[in-house]
Amino acid sequence: MRTSIATVSLSGSLVEKLHACASAGFDGVEIFEPDLIAGDHSPEEIRALATRLGLSLNLYQPLRDLEGVDETTFADNLRRARATFVTAQRLGIDTVLVCSNAGATATVDDDDVSASQLRRIGDLAATCGIRIAFEALAWGRFVDDYRRAWRIVQLADHPAVGVCLDSFHVLSRGHDPAGIEDIPGAKIFYLQLADAPALRMDVLSWSRHHRLFPGEGAFDLTAFVGHVLATGYDGPLSLEVFNDTFRQTDPQRTAVHALRSLRWLQDELHLIDIPDAKPPNGFDFVEIKAEDTGEVEVLLGQLGFTPRGRHRSKPVSLWCAGQARVVLNEQQARDQRPQVAAIGLQVPDAEATSGRARALMAPTAYRRTYASEQPFGATTVPGGVEVFWTSEPAWVGEFRDGVPQTPSPVRVIDHVNLSLPWQTAQDAALLLTSVFGLHAEEPTEVPGPTGLIRSQVLRSRVCAGPRARGTTPLAEPGAGEVRIPFNVAPHVLDDADPTQHVAFGCDDVVALARAARAAGLEFLPVPDNYYDYLSGRFGLDDGYVAELRALDLLYDRGPDGHFVHFYTRTVGSVFFEFVQRFGGYDGYGVDNAPVRLAAQRGRVGTVRT
Amino acid sequence: MRTSIATVSLSGSLVEKLHACASAGFDGVEIFEPDLIAGDHSPEEIRALATRLGLSLNLYQPLRDLEGVDETTFADNLRRARATFVTAQRLGIDTVLVCSNAGATATVDDDDVSASQLRRIGDLAATCGIRIAFEALAWGRFVDDYRRAWRIVQLADHPAVGVCLDSFHVLSRGHDPAGIEDIPGAKIFYLQLADAPALRMDVLSWSRHHRLFPGEGAFDLTAFVGHVLATGYDGPLSLEVFNDTFRQTDPQRTAVHALRSLRWLQDELHLIDIPDAKPPNGFDFVEIKAEDTGEVEVLLGQLGFTPRGRHRSKPVSLWCAGQARVVLNEQQARDQRPQVAAIGLQVPDAEATSGRARALMAPTAYRRTYASEQPFGATTVPGGVEVFWTSEPAWVGEFRDGVPQTPSPVRVIDHVNLSLPWQTAQDAALLLTSVFGLHAEEPTEVPGPTGLIRSQVLRSRVCAGPRARGTTPLAEPGAGEVRIPFNVAPHVLDDADPTQHVAFGCDDVVALARAARAAGLEFLPVPDNYYDYLSGRFGLDDGYVAELRALDLLYDRGPDGHFVHFYTRTVGSVFFEFVQRFGGYDGYGVDNAPVRLAAQRGRVGTVRT
Repeated sequence: MRTSIATVSLSGSLVEKLHACASAGFDGVEIFEPDLIAGDHSPEEIRALATRLGLSLNLYQPLRDLEGVDETTFADNLRRARATFVTAQRLGIDTVLVCSNAGATATVDDDDVSASQLRRIGDLAATCGIRIAFEALAWGRFVDDYRRAWRIVQLADHPAVGVCLDSFHVLSRGHDPAGIEDIPGAKIFYLQLADAPALRMDVLSWSRHHRLFPGEGAFDLTAFVGHVLATGYDGPLSLEVFNDTFRQTDPQRTAVHALRSLRWLQDELHLIDIPDAKPPNGFDFVEIKAEDTGEVEVLLGQLGFTPRGRHRSKPVSLWCAGQARVVLNEQQARDQRPQVAAIGLQVPDAEATSGRARALMAPTAYRRTYASEQPFGATTVPGGVEVFWTSEPAWVGEFRDGVPQTPSPVRVIDHVNLSLPWQTAQDAALLLTSVFGLHAEEPTEVPGPTGLIRSQVLRSRVCAGPRARGTTPLAEPGAGEVRIPFNVAPHVLDDADPTQHVAFGCDDVVALARAARAAGLEFLPVPDNYYDYLSGRFGLDDGYVAELRALDLLYDRGPDGHFVHFYTRTVGSVFFEFVQRFGGYDGYGVDNAPVRLAAQRGRVGTVRT
Repeated sequence: MRTSIATVSLSGSLVEKLHACASAGFDGVEIFEPDLIAGDHSPEEIRALATRLGLSLNLYQPLRDLEGVDETTFADNLRRARATFVTAQRLGIDTVLVCSNAGATATVDDDDVSASQLRRIGDLAATCGIRIAFEALAWGRFVDDYRRAWRIVQLADHPAVGVCLDSFHVLSRGHDPAGIEDIPGAKIFYLQLADAPALRMDVLSWSRHHRLFPGEGAFDLTAFVGHVLATGYDGPLSLEVFNDTFRQTDPQRTAVHALRSLRWLQDELHLIDIPDAKPPNGFDFVEIKAEDTGEVEVLLGQLGFTPRGRHRSKPVSLWCAGQARVVLNEQQARDQRPQVAAIGLQVPDAEATSGRARALMAPTAYRRTYASEQPFGATTVPGGVEVFWTSEPAWVGEFRDGVPQTPSPVRVIDHVNLSLPWQTAQDAALLLTSVFGLHAEEPTEVPGPTGLIRSQVLRSRVCAGPRARGTTPLAEPGAGEVRIPFNVAPHVLDDADPTQHVAFGCDDVVALARAARAAGLEFLPVPDNYYDYLSGRFGLDDGYVAELRALDLLYDRGPDGHFVHFYTRTVGSVFFEFVQRFGGYDGYGVDNAPVRLAAQRGRVGTVRT
């Protein structure tokens, strides 16, 4: 099926948008009228440019508030429609979107009247070689259900009059998409796709600000398109996504992001043949890069990590504890303070993952690899880090002169927490979910001292049932699993260095904290008020609270278990967390995040007393 | 009445918040528990700091999900409440907020059970010298109406148990606040105030992200507080405003902004005695500042403005057309490109306005004024320009060596359009509405090529009825009136230079455009596609459209008239607009704004073709 996107989904001028769509690889676009009006290029120039770029122009839209009106208004509407059809002809577009009347002129709530008016518009359109696709807006005054729009089209009974289906207008109202199968495919003149998060707000604002690309929200678009395909529809799959972020950000990047969402959807529908997503079965390593990694080495040493040697060809060293591997990289890191540079994932079939990454246009990351060294699949997450994947960690053998690994309470990398700029967070999330088959949980918000931080967890295991924290007891929580919480800071903090953190799962976090303290580790200090609160909140034993307090340990409890964790100070832009999950606790101690954020701010900012 | 604010309304640490509240002039604060928990300072330190700063600590909040539960849960809740009461005691706070149960533990929907549980919590509170204020959350599981909360408090019949009223929880649900008068004032233990815009979204998100200070939203808080005062309530007027912007921005500025809103409300309620707001009866002048104003002078000359001379003591010149005055200021403007530096307003009573500005803590703007020169009242709008006010423009006599004014189609300054950063737009709007009695219209959104721009008009005349454009025919639209549209650009454009513009009202904009073109004026070019669209949209006569096209004029039509306007190119960060209003047209041609924004971007950015 041909891929397409509405120009309103991207930022910039119409010409910039066409270039972005073509270079991403879309087959065509639908032209949003205001984009044409505000630009210098004539319809003929736009048509010629699209031809040169290999883009079909599939739809011109929207023609608003045409039907359901009195006859005086209708006469003026016909005149207005003619002008639009002439523009569409000049563009070489044969389909014009007519949306149901949502304005004050909608005064006649009668299917026969709407049908008669659509029929006359159809007559006019036909004389221009145009057909009209009638769409029920979710907020249409009278026609707000695709089933009613289809009834009216049936009554109009005109070869130039069909329906346009838009997943947002159907699914936002909770209308059953199964009824789509009652429409013959030949009468579905157009299909527009948008996903959206589950929000409870008026449908107009929801539609105009918060639409998302397929796979990013709460709508089941696979089922929706399945119903459309069952009718025999063979027109384009076209994205129409009104979103405040995409309106502001680089159209080239958004176009690739958009096409990736369609490829993902096509794969879900078995319309294209690309390797399956096989979720990773664990973290392979985390890489920290710095001009001088010495400070991190001291920290890891205090936490019981063992230095396993230097790489045979690069200024890179490996530190291990349990199954957790940390790679320290001083290569090409001039003037760089420590930061998380890469995440390694263990995948069941590295070849298949690489094929899938290519098919989904994941941007390739390049690292110099010498013969006899293990090659990795690699991609760069927009605005974030690099991700590598392998099936077997044979690369560990490339490190030399290490010391034997000593036992440690640290078992695994539990999660890697990435801070992303708001401009690229959605793009980054779709890249990881679509390529690696990670599941995105419901976003939450964490109040920090200078604003709300949006947090969303991507993980390799899907919790059944409600997605709230701690609902799914796992036999061995955190083991063989990948969890990547994404944090998006508020706009005002854009200039602040984003901090990333790596959390390690432990068998005995209290023993680890005690040993690390004895070894001189600097902990993130936790305020006394927190422990007074903790005691009241959970009714914990006084002795236990005293132990937590003495070691700056934090505590959380869910329905299925509890959680104990602590943080190191921040080095460069990275800090470490050590966590222990008890019972089926499946969260991240998110209620403690405000305490951490305040403590971290207190350490760097000036606080008046 | 004492003024108060919840610490959650401000950004920063608890200690920073207390300093900000004290320096703004609040009498007291309510402590939001998470602010205490995340801070290093003990309750005793906070209490002592508040004492030193002269702030009363009025309330500790919130205690959640206490009542409407089974008895096993209740036993644990009593233990939890005790810990909170101990903290309140340590803070020296005698009132704790208990909000109605909104959690999964709310399983008993029975007033008698809730009352019995509140009574037992009251017993416990009394032993600590604490009283509890029970509040119905708008999203409470069973108790979501203040009238039900009051019934339960009556049933509890305990001296330590009263109600807390929060304007948001009452008005967001559309509950009639008149019923408040059925509650004896002595049983209203606390009053929290928040305004909010009219939004249709779930009440929890609305409450957590979009609350505003009194006078900024759609709630009638004057009536609300009137009902509370009728009961004999004499506790504090306390602001509790959860707002994403205020969470991120300077707490010192927000605290002043917040207290201004309370002063405004106290004035509306005749609780304090300050001079009345008397709306301005016109623009006095606009001041443009630059190191070299020569480029602006050429522009004004092409538009038929007359140079009326140089100021006798400053490097300042005056240019006039009709009643419109433009002051060009080269004083202390090194390296500065032209920008709108000040707006002058004609007010009925300059003395009274100055008194009101002082009472509302408007920041004073200073200008050097020599003896025998006219003094002005002056304030600085946050993030924006300076505003001056006088009753009589005697200052015009301070300019010398000008030429006699020639007749011009330009009549008045129609509106001055200010671009404000998102951080200060709300603050700036409240300053202008509260000091000058301007009315804020409903905000709208304008799609620009790189994001949505939020636009809100402040004006001296209030439109009756619906606030939509063009609904109130004015005898002489634009005359004797002040209109200041505020534009707030999307976050990503923060770094871009904000452009301001001054729109002049004309008698014959076509003649003006023709004369200006003949004089060599550079117009903002309008694309041909716009005129093709215009023709279809409004069914205009071909000859008329040709005239508009030839002169780069834009056109709009409302129910009561139409509007013709054009723009100059941008000089520095300012451009000019010339408008003519026909009939009762009362808008700003907002539908043309995307065309203008695209044309302005096309002039500065690089567009690939």
